[in-house]
Amino acid sequence: MKLKLLRADLSSGSMRDEFVDEDEVKLFIGGRGLGVKIIIEELKPGTDPLGPENKLLFMTGPATGTAFPMSSMFHVITKSPQTGGIGETDCGGTFGPELRFAGYDGVIIEGKAAEPVYLWIREGEAEIRPAGRYWGKSTWDTEDCIRKELKDPNIKIASIGPAGENLASCAAIINDKHRAAGRTAAGAVMGSKRLKAIVVRGTKRPPVADEKKLKEAVQNALKMLKESRITGHDLPTYGTAIAVGSINEHGLFPTRNFQTGVFPTAEKISGETLAKTILIKSKGCWGCPIDCSRVIRVTQSPYQVEGEGPEYEEIWALGAQCYIDDLNAIAKANNLCDELGIDPLSYGNTVGCAMELSERGKISKEKLGGLELKFGNPQAIVELTWRTAY
Amino acid sequence: MKLKLLRADLSSGSMRDEFVDEDEVKLFIGGRGLGVKIIIEELKPGTDPLGPENKLLFMTGPATGTAFPMSSMFHVITKSPQTGGIGETDCGGTFGPELRFAGYDGVIIEGKAAEPVYLWIREGEAEIRPAGRYWGKSTWDTEDCIRKELKDPNIKIASIGPAGENLASCAAIINDKHRAAGRTAAGAVMGSKRLKAIVVRGTKRPPVADEKKLKEAVQNALKMLKESRITGHDLPTYGTAIAVGSINEHGLFPTRNFQTGVFPTAEKISGETLAKTILIKSKGCWGCPIDCSRVIRVTQSPYQVEGEGPEYEEIWALGAQCYIDDLNAIAKANNLCDELGIDPLSYGNTVGCAMELSERGKISKEKLGGLELKFGNPQAIVELTWRTAY
Repeated sequence: MKLKLLRADLSSGSMRDEFVDEDEVKLFIGGRGLGVKIIIEELKPGTDPLGPENKLLFMTGPATGTAFPMSSMFHVITKSPQTGGIGETDCGGTFGPELRFAGYDGVIIEGKAAEPVYLWIREGEAEIRPAGRYWGKSTWDTEDCIRKELKDPNIKIASIGPAGENLASCAAIINDKHRAAGRTAAGAVMGSKRLKAIVVRGTKRPPVADEKKLKEAVQNALKMLKESRITGHDLPTYGTAIAVGSINEHGLFPTRNFQTGVFPTAEKISGETLAKTILIKSKGCWGCPIDCSRVIRVTQSPYQVEGEGPEYEEIWALGAQCYIDDLNAIAKANNLCDELGIDPLSYGNTVGCAMELSERGKISKEKLGGLELKFGNPQAIVELTWRTAY
Repeated sequence: MKLKLLRADLSSGSMRDEFVDEDEVKLFIGGRGLGVKIIIEELKPGTDPLGPENKLLFMTGPATGTAFPMSSMFHVITKSPQTGGIGETDCGGTFGPELRFAGYDGVIIEGKAAEPVYLWIREGEAEIRPAGRYWGKSTWDTEDCIRKELKDPNIKIASIGPAGENLASCAAIINDKHRAAGRTAAGAVMGSKRLKAIVVRGTKRPPVADEKKLKEAVQNALKMLKESRITGHDLPTYGTAIAVGSINEHGLFPTRNFQTGVFPTAEKISGETLAKTILIKSKGCWGCPIDCSRVIRVTQSPYQVEGEGPEYEEIWALGAQCYIDDLNAIAKANNLCDELGIDPLSYGNTVGCAMELSERGKISKEKLGGLELKFGNPQAIVELTWRTAY
């Protein structure tokens, strides 16, 4: 089957539909494969990742939005300002499927808007709308405000927060308030184009080549997921943080800027501890039966927060890498990252690295205003979120 | 003696010197008197405080910058976006005297710059310079960066932080990193004019009508200040926070959004406690022998900070008004206010009011992201600083 892509040039405001032939779709598997191909073909060497010549692709795969379980994922592909190479980052939530329901398999963003805008795609129609009033807002407020503006609580929104607007090199694109296309600073590319959000809504269902075979595959997959201890019990009960204990035992848990792979107090930040302390309920991405997301609440000052996570990776990035075993502080930092549009992994690793540099005397204390940038200080991982975003 | 004022129109970029006759100077005493007169004469009724028609005055008094002790003060006068009336706010530090040394008794800012600018006044010469690269920076970083740009560590700077840029209705103008022209949101007016800072440097000494009589007056004043228990001992030893205890005992200490005038645990946030816990040394404004400022350091996470204060007023605004007796949290919030360009008094009172509203069910919890806006929560007074500024 052909794919339908939307190409939007924010410099001129022009948009057009493009189609990708089935042969090519089969040659470059999934949104990631096709997206990387487009970036390689269309970007000149030496392109400034934060310049208007860079392109920002939101791509889905053939399974996205079908009945196949765990098919919520979409991919963001761009030249990364964080690495200088091709950046690719994957994301769950609700945005990917809804993009296909809205009639597109992918979006290619080009150029740079003169003023902040958002892209509104509904039932095969696309429109570039002003977003000046949302510039400066968090991803959470942006979602709430755009839903209010468009008078539809069911639209799906992928947006940037202040971190992306300010071109932070750990800026993420967030959808569903807590799902991050995090790695490679795609959020900064979006900010450089003054694109605050992509908003999607539709009722189209993705085409399926063989409905009968898909149904069989879905049933098999659901059975496997249910019967597996990991996907049938551990992930639903403890989230991805179930991995903390075993990976730490195997000496592969990134700790203290990865000076070591063992965190002595890992049990204080494990999935089991999370379930016993701050967990309210579990939650899943679109169409996924596993429900590995954690809805949480920290009631104790100074790290009170309501939100989601942390996931396994966030626990080591915001926790062990910084030698922090305060689960409340990790949860607080994690949700501030979501809210401000920061990738918690890039951010946590950077703070861990800064802590090592600081302890080795490579970072002047003058600029820290009294904040001790040393391993184990939970204040640092929380306070540096907003200092990074703004 | 005549006064010399600089009138700078940021819309057109034009500047001119103006003189005020001695008769008028005597009729409208001090920078405050003359400034209010100018605002009344020049502003039309109905002027938008945040529009280009508003004017922003930086005025000194006849004693400012002379040998007379405590003569560091200057005044900012404008139509206040906080009250809608004439706003007047006073400020110590080093900026006022240096403005006179630079050859001006006052500055009248008019209009609105197309892009962020700062005003550089040196030895009777004035220049409007681009400040785009400083927009978004804290007041502390702005001071450091402009000193570096102009290659002079001794220039004095009055600037706004993100709170002023974002027109927060508690935005202050900060000089010397910790001295705030705080009340009436003068910082928001400065932000509305896209004026990031006024920078001054000079070697001129203010004219004195009778040197001999001034010398006598100075000696008398210094003697009185030294012999007084308050200015000779209490303020140098404990700062203005010495007032906490006695005012609380008299039932006049603003507590719990001023539901009461007595804070049961006031001794935990008194000047005496401050001196025993976080005080590093005392410090004075320009030409003042009292040294009532506090240089402090909080070493305990989660409120680590190095900076100054809190003063008496900040202690009740950030502390008792919010029923918070955590001196570390108060010191942290106070320095975040200075750094972000927030008036800690307007801000603390507002948070105290919000706490009462929240406890009475008038503020939806949805928007608080888990932060409990209730009396006694130190996290609130710290976290809401940056949420207010941005």
